[in-house]
Parts: sequence; C-alpha cells; structure tokens
Amino acid sequence: MDLLRTLCQLAAPAGNEAPMTEFLLNYIAQSQSSWRVQPQVLSGEEFQDCIILIFGKPRTAVFAHMDSIGFTVRYGQELVRIGGPRTETGYRLVGQDSQGTIDCTLTVDEETGELGYEFTRPIERGTELTFFCDFRETETSVQSCYLDNRLGVWNALRLAETLENGIIAFSCWEEHGGGSVAYLAKYIYEHYSVRQALISDITWVTEGVHAGKGVVISLRDSLIPRRSYVDRIRRLAREAGIAHQLEVEGSGGSDAKELQHGAQPWDWCFIGAPEDHVHSPNELVDKRDIDSMLALYQVLMREL
Amino acid sequence: MDLLRTLCQLAAPAGNEAPMTEFLLNYIAQSQSSWRVQPQVLSGEEFQDCIILIFGKPRTAVFAHMDSIGFTVRYGQELVRIGGPRTETGYRLVGQDSQGTIDCTLTVDEETGELGYEFTRPIERGTELTFFCDFRETETSVQSCYLDNRLGVWNALRLAETLENGIIAFSCWEEHGGGSVAYLAKYIYEHYSVRQALISDITWVTEGVHAGKGVVISLRDSLIPRRSYVDRIRRLAREAGIAHQLEVEGSGGSDAKELQHGAQPWDWCFIGAPEDHVHSPNELVDKRDIDSMLALYQVLMREL
Amino acid sequence: MDLLRTLCQLAAPAGNEAPMTEFLLNYIAQSQSSWRVQPQVLSGEEFQDCIILIFGKPRTAVFAHMDSIGFTVRYGQELVRIGGPRTETGYRLVGQDSQGTIDCTLTVDEETGELGYEFTRPIERGTELTFFCDFRETETSVQSCYLDNRLGVWNALRLAETLENGIIAFSCWEEHGGGSVAYLAKYIYEHYSVRQALISDITWVTEGVHAGKGVVISLRDSLIPRRSYVDRIRRLAREAGIAHQLEVEGSGGSDAKELQHGAQPWDWCFIGAPEDHVHSPNELVDKRDIDSMLALYQVLMREL
Repeated sequence: MDLLRTLCQLAAPAGNEAPMTEFLLNYIAQSQSSWRVQPQVLSGEEFQDCIILIFGKPRTAVFAHMDSIGFTVRYGQELVRIGGPRTETGYRLVGQDSQGTIDCTLTVDEETGELGYEFTRPIERGTELTFFCDFRETETSVQSCYLDNRLGVWNALRLAETLENGIIAFSCWEEHGGGSVAYLAKYIYEHYSVRQALISDITWVTEGVHAGKGVVISLRDSLIPRRSYVDRIRRLAREAGIAHQLEVEGSGGSDAKELQHGAQPWDWCFIGAPEDHVHSPNELVDKRDIDSMLALYQVLMREL
Repeated sequence: MDLLRTLCQLAAPAGNEAPMTEFLLNYIAQSQSSWRVQPQVLSGEEFQDCIILIFGKPRTAVFAHMDSIGFTVRYGQELVRIGGPRTETGYRLVGQDSQGTIDCTLTVDEETGELGYEFTRPIERGTELTFFCDFRETETSVQSCYLDNRLGVWNALRLAETLENGIIAFSCWEEHGGGSVAYLAKYIYEHYSVRQALISDITWVTEGVHAGKGVVISLRDSLIPRRSYVDRIRRLAREAGIAHQLEVEGSGGSDAKELQHGAQPWDWCFIGAPEDHVHSPNELVDKRDIDSMLALYQVLMREL
Repeated sequence: MDLLRTLCQLAAPAGNEAPMTEFLLNYIAQSQSSWRVQPQVLSGEEFQDCIILIFGKPRTAVFAHMDSIGFTVRYGQELVRIGGPRTETGYRLVGQDSQGTIDCTLTVDEETGELGYEFTRPIERGTELTFFCDFRETETSVQSCYLDNRLGVWNALRLAETLENGIIAFSCWEEHGGGSVAYLAKYIYEHYSVRQALISDITWVTEGVHAGKGVVISLRDSLIPRRSYVDRIRRLAREAGIAHQLEVEGSGGSDAKELQHGAQPWDWCFIGAPEDHVHSPNELVDKRDIDSMLALYQVLMREL
C-alpha cells in the first residue's frame, strides 16, 4: 500500500492535476518493463493533464480520475469549495503560495455556514488547499483523505500490471463539474472504436451497501446506464465468483456523466469499492473490497 | 389506435429501451413495403438501442423518444424515480424479476415523501417498474400512461407512411437526463448535412394551451430555440391552415436540449399535442390535437 | 464610445441575435480596411447567427457573446425571463410585435414574484422584450443596460483593429443556457488547431473586486480553469505592467462552460472589466477597467 499512500499524499485538486500527472508518468516509465504488456502512453498538451494508456487490441476502457476535492482561498479569510468536501471546523488543510508552505485550519461559521481558515498569515488569493493526509493502514482497512479517487487510480495501476488488451484513462476535473472525459472519450472512440467503459472510482457505504461485502457494481446513480451492458457485467461477476454488491442510487455521479452525454454511444458501468466518511479526511475502505475490485476489473477486461 | 395501444403497453423505461427497439424494428420491417418510400434503417451497437430511418434526400430530422418514466427498486421496499413520474399511493406498477412477473402498488410516505411498494414478496434490487397500462379510448380522446411519448413515436411512424425526404430518429434516455441524441445528432449532421430538427413529443395543457385547440408549436421551454427557424415554422403552419397553438414556458425540456448543447448548429422546434395529467397513469390527449400534429409534420417535412 | 452606445441599444436577446449579427457583419465590412490585418469572416447558416474572424496564424481565440438577457411574453400579462435579468417594478421594456412597437413597464407581483407588464394593449404571445437603453457616459464611467456583454463585443472589435494572429468568435445564447460555443469550439479546434481561449465578458464588482482597479482575471467561477494556463496569463499581465485584479468565485459562468465541457482540450480564462448593478438597466463600468481590459487582450493575443 506504499503506492496508495504516496498517491493520497499528493496534492492535485481539480484544475491543478499537473503534479499527479508528473508522478504517474514517472511511475509508468519506471514500472512498465515489469508489466505483461507495455502500453502506448498518450499525454501532452493535446490531452491537457490527462494520460491514456493503450494495451494491445483494446475493447474496453477504464476511467480513473486523478483530481481531488479541496478549497480555494477567496478574499480575506474566506474559502470556496473545490468539488464537495465535507467541512468541519478544525480540519487541517495544507498548501503553498509564493510566501511558502501552508498548514492551516478550516473554520465553518456556525450561523452562515461560510468557510474560512485560521493561519499565522494571510494566504494569497486563489491558493488551493487540500486536506492534510493522515494515512492509516490496519490489517483490514485503509483510511485517509482522497481514497476517492486515489484508490481508483491505484486499482488502474495494479490492473495495468497484467492487462493485455484494454485502455486506461486518467482523467481530470471529475470532482468539479468534469471537463476532460468528453475529449478522452471522443479520442478513444475515434482512434480505437472502443465504446465500453468501466468507471474505476469509489462509492458510498449505505444501508444497502456494506464495508467488506465486496466491490460495488452500480446499477444507477443520478444517471442510468444501459441495462444490457450492466447485465453482462453482473453475469461475468457471478460466473467468476467474485464477491460483489449491487448499488441503486438516485443521486451522485462520476466520469460516466460525460460518457453518457457525449457524442459517442458509450456503454458504461461504475464499479468500485465503497467507503465510509465520504469526502472527509477520514475516508475508510475495507481491504476485502479493494481486493475484489481489482479481481473484478481483471476478469472484466479479459471477458467483456 | 391499436398501434398506439401496443406502444403504450410496452415496458421500456429509460436505460432499458431494448424491448421497444425490437418492436419498432419488427414493425418497420413488416410495414415499410406499404410506405411511399422505403427508408434506410440504421440500428445496432453503434446506435445502442436507437433507430434512425433515412428517407430520400433529407433536409429535416424528426426526433421521437422511445423511453418512459418509471421506478427502480432500491433497498428493502424502497423505490427511486426514473425521470419524473407523478406519485400517488395506490398507483399500480408492473415489472419482472428473476422470480417472475410483478404487479404491485406504489406507496408514498406522507411525511417524508419516500417512495416504496407493497407486494406479496420482496422484489429484486435494481428491478424496473412501470405504470400498469389502462388504455382508454373514446370518440374524442385517448387516455393512458406513456402517451408521453408513445404518441410522439406513433406520430413518427404514421408520418413515415408518406414521407419522401427526411429522417426519423428514435432516441433513448430522454426522460432521465438524455444521452443518445448527442451522438444521433452528430451522426446525422456529419453523414447527411441535416441541421433542422422537429421534436415529436407531448407537452402540457396549461392556462395558455388547451385540449382540442390544435397541435402546440413551442416558442420556448427552459431553452429558447433560434427565432428565425421557429418563425418559418409558424408561417408554414398558418399558410397550411392547420389548427395550432403557441406555447411559452420557462421550464421543461426535451430531446432538443442535446441538440442545443451539441457541437453542431442544429435549429430545432418542439411540436406536439398537449396532454393533461402529465406523467401519471392517466395522461389524456384530445384526438383533434393528434390529427393536427400529424398534419403539421406532414407539411413541415415537405416544406421546410 | 459611440460604437458601444450603438451596441447597447440594439435588441438581441438570447435566441434572436440576428439583428446583432447583421450589424456586426456590416461594421466589419466597413471597418476592416483600416485594420492592421484583414480577417477571414466566417458566417452563415452553418454558424447560425454566430461570426468567426480569423486573423493571420491564430494561436488563441477570443469569445464574446452577442446576446442579452430579457423577457418573453407568455399568456395574458405574464412574462418569463430570458437569462437572469434583475427585476424591479417600473423598469422600462421595449420590443415589437406585428401590431407595432412596444414601450411598456415591468411589474413584479410582491407576493408571488410573478413577472408581468403594463401596456396600453395586449402584447402578442412569444414577443421578446428588452430593457430600454438609457446610455450614460461621464469622464470616468459608462452606464447602460447590456454592458454585459456589449462591452465584451466592443473590446473584441477594438482588439481587431491591431490584431495580427488570432481568432475572434461572436457567440449566441450565452445568457440562456448556451448552445453555440460547442460548435464554434469544435470548428476552431479542428480547422486551426487552436485550443487557447480568452472569454471577453463582464464580471461583478464584489468585496474583492473593485471598480477602477483594473481588468479582472478570474481564477475561477462555478468552474475551475486549468491552473497552468491561468498562471501563464497572470505572469504576462504582471510583466506587461497592466493594472488587473484577481477574482475567486464559487458561482457564475460564461461561454467557458461550453469550452470546459466540450470534446476538445480547451484552456480558457475569463478576463473582463467588472460592473456594478449587474443584469439591470443600470450596469456601471469604470473606464479605467475598460482601458486595461483592451490593453491586456492586446498583450495576451501577442504573447500567449
């Protein structure tokens, strides 16, 4: 889990994913010689801060978003949200401006709900702050900020080790309105005729989805994927005997939103481990769900 | 109206339109020999569950959505909405899961508004339920669930009988966020240079739009179409002497949303009969408005 | 400022931009002989009511929206909004229907908030009304309805006088959900490989942004642009010594929404003068901010 710890500690809020891009490109360059298949690596200005890996003859693409939630310094002591972070007075926030590193405290006005910070000096306007990473691992669980979606990225990197045919796309801005999957999806469809997608992301523990009971196959969130595609995935998961749970939600979204609304006929399905304490510094995932997530991705990328 | 009755009885909620697709492909195969022009039929995985019919040298495309509103079984006895169905305790819902057919009753919690079902057994998670179809026809009206938009589909099929030049596209997911018109619109524009659209769908009886007063030409809903295109349509409707009404709304939407926001310069106009008891099992349309709807589409597809 | 006054007086609410298109095409035809470079002018049905100007070898595109907010006449005396106009009983509204010109008064129901008009006769359903233009210029400021975004259009036209390499795109529907930038952006990217954008539009005076303190470079609104691109712009502004302010907002949007969500990897930044009395008949801008806006666009189009 050292790789996961490193990923969680890297600051890359939506809009400023470049540090994660740099880390991933280095990691891929150093690791891929030991992978079963060496992928073609697509990156650069034409993909902004995204990365696409092409393995063999792809039929299915995995999307994992690199960005995280966080905060932007507004005027005076004010903060505005990047994405939808949980907010509690006392959360430790870190960042950097031209005057140096920042290690400050989140404040939430009890009456107005307005967000602010407490620090020894004013922070420059527009500075991004992210949760301080306190990575906690036990025999059965991992806990940290940003398991959503550094665990989805980790899953994609572990999948890459044995992947023979498929595409892995690392996307940006997922936590804050999206903005990269539309062009990634267009590029992939036009160059590789691939229109099957799996969303490698983290979902919620709820009254119907429990920690430790296996990876979640989402039947719907705010959007509804094409039934026939999800049914194929459910059948493959059952046949492979991989522990999994079915999720049915009326809200929430993912990179799939851009696939659903884009101008290519993508089939998609959200498949990921569930976490507790969503969008807080204390996101908690059961290791059994991480294991079954990776196992299911390995099966699906072979069989779909 | 037997065709309309059959269309209304077919379960095809957003995301699971395949049964309707199969019906339409069969219907088209059996009927088209009697049509004035035999269209090219485009369907298959590249179009998911959508169908495109190409007649002659097209200048204008008609979009009719196949999907309906409904409910998804969540956890325990809970339901979540597909699209925006009206909900009243006692509505009869039908469906199917691996244990057999389902004929149950909708419940609405008076305090929380939460949706559920009452049935003799638990229903499997993720099962889709739709309104039971009680199709009622009189001399002057039809009443049923899902006239929105099986009547728009019916209008397109009747239009097909005499259509010489034009496109008819049957779309998916309209009731739940859209997701197919973007690629249909791109395909049509790129292959046929067509950028004029008519939205064959059903609208609302309101204080300004009355049953029996003619098909509705919508000047706007939540979106505003290009004025010059709508003005041409109004002129053609007046010149043809077809009874029609003008609608002006600040809310509501249709397949036109995806045309408006897509990356092609589509002109569009929503044209459809108005209904009462919208999104309930008792949608009610005046037959005179059905007649003028079809008549106006016939004129516009010739003249636009 | 005669050009700005003329632009502000022209009625062109979202969806009916044609009068502005006609004016701009005439203005460009008459003026471009005195411009440093004569652009290629792209317009016509393939661009609906939009206009694209191509100068030299472009690297960056400026987007300025032509449309304005306003009102549509609904049923009886009712009005519905076009975009998000401020509403106060007594605002003077003008327009035209088949019975002649209209000069009426806005009414806002104190209890329901419903909008209406008072006039000597009924106005035809679907008629568009816009604010009466009372253009007020002093030594230090301009005040009028529709400085948002006729000032952004003016800035683009003044920029055109000396522009050597670049693109200027005049867009439609920005105030009401968008709908043209998606295809403009696709066309520009595919034909010119340009993916850098500047949004020539007007923003808000707030507690952090003050009139007279210089053009605003927006670090974010409801969306977050790519950090590395905005950082380049900030550096160029500092090096050029142009007065400017940094904005950080959690809400608001612009033509950039369509760039962010489109299927091309656009970098974008909103740069514009701030105004007070936003979306009212009395929008107020400091002339120093207009000057620094134009100066910054001139620098950026050279240096980016």
